[in-house]
Amino acid sequence: MKHITIDEAERAIAGAKKKGKELGGAFSVAILDHGGHLVAFARMDGTFLATIDLAQRKAHTSAFVKMETQDIWQVAKAEGEAHGIEISNGGMITFAGGIPLFDKDKNHIGAIGVSGGSVDQDYQVACAGRDALK
Amino acid sequence: MKHITIDEAERAIAGAKKKGKELGGAFSVAILDHGGHLVAFARMDGTFLATIDLAQRKAHTSAFVKMETQDIWQVAKAEGEAHGIEISNGGMITFAGGIPLFDKDKNHIGAIGVSGGSVDQDYQVACAGRDALK
Amino acid sequence: MKHITIDEAERAIAGAKKKGKELGGAFSVAILDHGGHLVAFARMDGTFLATIDLAQRKAHTSAFVKMETQDIWQVAKAEGEAHGIEISNGGMITFAGGIPLFDKDKNHIGAIGVSGGSVDQDYQVACAGRDALK
Amino acid sequence: MKHITIDEAERAIAGAKKKGKELGGAFSVAILDHGGHLVAFARMDGTFLATIDLAQRKAHTSAFVKMETQDIWQVAKAEGEAHGIEISNGGMITFAGGIPLFDKDKNHIGAIGVSGGSVDQDYQVACAGRDALK
Repeated sequence: MKHITIDEAERAIAGAKKKGKELGGAFSVAILDHGGHLVAFARMDGTFLATIDLAQRKAHTSAFVKMETQDIWQVAKAEGEAHGIEISNGGMITFAGGIPLFDKDKNHIGAIGVSGGSVDQDYQVACAGRDALK
Repeated sequence: MKHITIDEAERAIAGAKKKGKELGGAFSVAILDHGGHLVAFARMDGTFLATIDLAQRKAHTSAFVKMETQDIWQVAKAEGEAHGIEISNGGMITFAGGIPLFDKDKNHIGAIGVSGGSVDQDYQVACAGRDALK
Repeated sequence: MKHITIDEAERAIAGAKKKGKELGGAFSVAILDHGGHLVAFARMDGTFLATIDLAQRKAHTSAFVKMETQDIWQVAKAEGEAHGIEISNGGMITFAGGIPLFDKDKNHIGAIGVSGGSVDQDYQVACAGRDALK
Repeated sequence: MKHITIDEAERAIAGAKKKGKELGGAFSVAILDHGGHLVAFARMDGTFLATIDLAQRKAHTSAFVKMETQDIWQVAKAEGEAHGIEISNGGMITFAGGIPLFDKDKNHIGAIGVSGGSVDQDYQVACAGRDALK
């Protein structure tokens, strides 16, 4: 089992912040290892305090289910087969902004979580963080 | 970055209590700084105990997202883009009664939260608290 | 069973703040009812954030044991008969600054807790708050 | 009231990590704002998981009392005037590794917390982080 290194985590954060600035926003970005434990975090100036928890919670959710957070909604929603699953694990996030991270050999190495803009912006920033690892 | 003073906080509470009495009800009123930390609190005689947490939680939610609590519902509801966001940050309130506070220069200085009556009454009392700072 | 009114609580806080200013310090002051639930709170400008929890925790401890907090130490200390009791009830404070409040008929109506200065100053401020009710 | 920027926070983390490498160890480093909220975090490869909480908790303690964590022990120890104070505020750390941060004008802007080596090493790494802001 491998996990993301601090160098990789900081590279992902730099990529996410760069995208965040391009979008003209301010975001919190969290990188967790495959066990859901914090490796690196950055909160850009001017974002609101709720993003600290949200970014980490999105990443934690993704690390724990190995899925992008928005994909959980299909099963978590009222009509879904695991309706209400988001109440487990300390509270899971079911909208976009959390993405699991894999290495070239498809080993699960961690997750990135982003909060601070619209949900679509959060997702773009998270993808930019992930892509900085390629 | 500024934060609300104790004199301002007590002025806001006095304004909120005055409105609460006009409405014939009993309310808990919490004033937090911009970091979400308690500055002043008052629980009027006769209100129920749940209002202690509710007033502080509404104010905390508003301090953390810099929005009025009821405005979160548009994104938090099942069809909203951030459905279930209220599960984060220790539990957020998504109905009226929490209002962020800004000074004349639009600096975010804190938040007020009110609970004890109907949601509409809570909102009126919170607005009266905010307006006492003008 | 009676409990402290909001008017009494605010009178106690005013008395405590007056004493706090005389001492040249800045204090957090919490007033709880006989059930240990918050009635009123004030944090003077310039005190440190840890006082928010400490003031409330001192008052909570006093409300729950109907003793001044420093008197618990005799039983709570390593050689005391209830050594380590402070670990119960969410964490009790065993040094001065929390005082139970009684009315003229010796009914237990609540507690006051103070934090922000030396322990001796905290105690003086708490006593001033209590005495403002006489 | 000011708070530390993300650029300052990342500079402090870089300084701390550099010192950590010189000492041949692996450390978690947390930077919080003056309200005790996370701004930036880095966990060096190879350190143990408990450091994630410890580093943040040290920084939180320092942000909340505006003191270096080890200085709390004089009052917190069994013979100290505030014996057991560490039980408050969610659990405070009373050994070295947490340092409050001030700007040139002595404004309290945040705190740094470090964990991963001996307590003496943690302190050296925290000081290096602080000094990187000068």
